[in-house]
Amino acid sequence: MKVNGYAASKAKAPLAPFQFERREPREKDVVIEILYCGVCHSDIHQARDEWGGGLFPMVPGHEIVGKVIQTGPKVTHFKVGQNVGVGCLVDSCRACTSCHENLEQYCENGFVGTYNGIERDGKTPTFGGYSSHIVVDEAFVLSIPTNLDLSKTAPLLCAGITTYSPLKHWKVKSGMKVGVIGLGGLGHMAVKIAAAMGAEVILFTTSKNKKEDALKMGAKTVVISSDKEEMKKQTGLLDLIINTVSAQILLTDYLSLLKREGTMVMLGVSPDSLNLESHALIMKRRNLAGSLIGGLKETQEMLDFCAKHNITSDIELIPIQKINEAFDKAVKSQVKYRFVIEMNSLKIKD
Amino acid sequence: MKVNGYAASKAKAPLAPFQFERREPREKDVVIEILYCGVCHSDIHQARDEWGGGLFPMVPGHEIVGKVIQTGPKVTHFKVGQNVGVGCLVDSCRACTSCHENLEQYCENGFVGTYNGIERDGKTPTFGGYSSHIVVDEAFVLSIPTNLDLSKTAPLLCAGITTYSPLKHWKVKSGMKVGVIGLGGLGHMAVKIAAAMGAEVILFTTSKNKKEDALKMGAKTVVISSDKEEMKKQTGLLDLIINTVSAQILLTDYLSLLKREGTMVMLGVSPDSLNLESHALIMKRRNLAGSLIGGLKETQEMLDFCAKHNITSDIELIPIQKINEAFDKAVKSQVKYRFVIEMNSLKIKD
Repeated sequence: MKVNGYAASKAKAPLAPFQFERREPREKDVVIEILYCGVCHSDIHQARDEWGGGLFPMVPGHEIVGKVIQTGPKVTHFKVGQNVGVGCLVDSCRACTSCHENLEQYCENGFVGTYNGIERDGKTPTFGGYSSHIVVDEAFVLSIPTNLDLSKTAPLLCAGITTYSPLKHWKVKSGMKVGVIGLGGLGHMAVKIAAAMGAEVILFTTSKNKKEDALKMGAKTVVISSDKEEMKKQTGLLDLIINTVSAQILLTDYLSLLKREGTMVMLGVSPDSLNLESHALIMKRRNLAGSLIGGLKETQEMLDFCAKHNITSDIELIPIQKINEAFDKAVKSQVKYRFVIEMNSLKIKD
Repeated sequence: MKVNGYAASKAKAPLAPFQFERREPREKDVVIEILYCGVCHSDIHQARDEWGGGLFPMVPGHEIVGKVIQTGPKVTHFKVGQNVGVGCLVDSCRACTSCHENLEQYCENGFVGTYNGIERDGKTPTFGGYSSHIVVDEAFVLSIPTNLDLSKTAPLLCAGITTYSPLKHWKVKSGMKVGVIGLGGLGHMAVKIAAAMGAEVILFTTSKNKKEDALKMGAKTVVISSDKEEMKKQTGLLDLIINTVSAQILLTDYLSLLKREGTMVMLGVSPDSLNLESHALIMKRRNLAGSLIGGLKETQEMLDFCAKHNITSDIELIPIQKINEAFDKAVKSQVKYRFVIEMNSLKIKD
C-alpha cells in the first residue's frame, strides 16, 4: 500500500514529504492508521546521522499510537477499530534466550528497529511513525487502555517504557529514594512512574525553572545540580538513580549520592566517553548499569500501569509541517516535555 | 608494651627498624605474636603516600597471621596458643546499619584500618603487621583453621577476602563463567576461589608466561589480553568479571565480554579516572560495580572455605630486611604471587 510520510532524504537533510510502500498485510499483520507519533530525541540523532550508519531516506518515529484498520487472517489479539501502539521494535529473532524471556530489546540476533532498521529478510528497510499507516506483526503491537488520552500516550511507547523498565528491574517500591537526572521526555516520565510506584523522588536538574513542574509531577525534592551544597545533602541517601541525560555528567558526584549497593542506571547513549573514578563504586559496593527500552510484555505492563495510575506524558501537539522546527527546539530543550505529531496534519495540502 | 617493627618514617622513605608502643590489652583484647605478614600492593601505595593523606611514621601490613599469647579477661572466642589472623580492619563503629549487617568494611562512620588509621578515640594511630606483636579486640580477630599452612594463609586476610567477597556477593556457582583480569596477588586468589566455587574461570593477562600457572590454579582458559581475536571469542559469554588490575584498562572491551545482565567488579582503586562508553552497559543491561575487602563474618567464612578446599596463596617468603627490595619487585610484578614476611626475622641482629 502507498503511504504518505515525512523523511530525511539523507543525513542532516530537513524532513520533507515522502511517499513510500508498506507491505501488504501478512497472516499475522495488523494495519494501523497512525493518529499520533511522539518525537523522541533519538529521532533527531538518527535523522542527523549522529550515531553513524543511518539508512536514508529515513522516516523516523517509534512512539506510535493509532487505530487498527485491517488485520491478517491469523491475527488473534486485535480487531479493526481498536486503539493500539507500536514502540521501538517491530520484530526480533523470537528464538534466542532473550526473546524467550520476553526481552526482545536484547535479542541476541538484533531486534528490528521500527525505523532505520532492516527487516528479518535482511534487505527491506523499516520506516517509522512519521507516516499515515504502519503494518506490524501483532506480536509487536500493544493494546492501548481505553482511559488514556491517545495523544499523550504516544510517548509512553519509548520514553515511558525506557524509564519503567529500569524502575521495575531494580525493584522500586514504597520506602525507596529514587533520583532522576534531567527533566526532559524521559525524565518527566521517570518522575511520574517512580512516584506512582511509591518511591520518594529526587529530581536533579540544571534548570531552576523546571522545579515547579517536577514537584507537580510527583518529585518530593528538586536539586539544582550546580548547587554543590544541595547535592551534598543527598550523599549516601539514594537507592537508585535514573540518568536520562546523555551529555557528559560528573559520574562520581552522582555515584556518591547512592547508598551502599545502590545503582545508577544510564539510559542515554553518550557520544563521548564518560570519566569514572573507581573508588566511587568500590567504597560502597555501588553499581553503574545501563538499560535499553523494554520488551513487548513489559511495555504492555507499563501501559496498564499507566492506565491504572492515570499517567501520561506532558506534550505539545504539532502538525507534521512543524517537525524541523520541533527538532531544533527539542535539541535546545525548549519543549514541555515531548512533541507529539498529530498525524491527521499529513492530509493538509500546502 | 614495646614492639619492634619496620616503618616508613615519612612518605616515600624506605622502611627501616622502628620501635613503638602497643596498648596494654583491654578486657576484650587479644595479644598476638605475629608470625607472618603478607605484602599487599596497598602497603606500597600507602607507604609511598600515593593515595595522599598518609600518617607517618607508618608500619604497614594487614595480612597478619600469628599466635595468641595473652587475652583480656572478657575474651571468649580465643585462647592462648591459638593461631589467629587479622586483616584490613581492627575496629568500626559497630552501631551503623553496615556494621549490624556484618559489613564492617562499609561502616558508615568509617572503619579503623589496621594501619595508617586512627582508633575510635579519634587520636591514636594504628600500626600494622610489619611488627612483632599486635593488640586487637577479639571482634576483629579471625580463627585460622588448623589444616592451613600459616605462611601461605597470611595473604588470605586481604587478597583472599577481597576476591571471595565479590564472588560470593554476585553468587558464583557451578555453571557460571567467571573472568579474572590480572594474575597477581588478588588475581591468583580469585582464580583459585572461583574455580573452587565451581565456576569455569577465564583468566585475562598481559603475560604469556603466566599461562601455565593460571591453568594449574584452576583457570580453564587463559586469554592474552593483547590478542584481539582471543578476546573477541569471549564476547557475551561471561557472567562475571573480577578486575584485579588497578591500572587503566579498556573497560568497554571487557564489558562487551559479559552476558546480558552480567557484572564487572572493580577491586583496585585506580589513581587515574577510567573511560567508559555508556552503550557497553546499556545494550545488554550490564553492570559495572566495585567491592571492598569483606566483613569479619565473611572473612571467617572465607578462611573456612579455603580450609575445606585446601586453598592458600602462592608465596615467596622473605625476611623483613628485604622489604624495600620486595616493594620494588612487587611494583614490577616480579613476585609469584605474594611476598610474605617471616616475622621471626625481626630478631636477627644486623
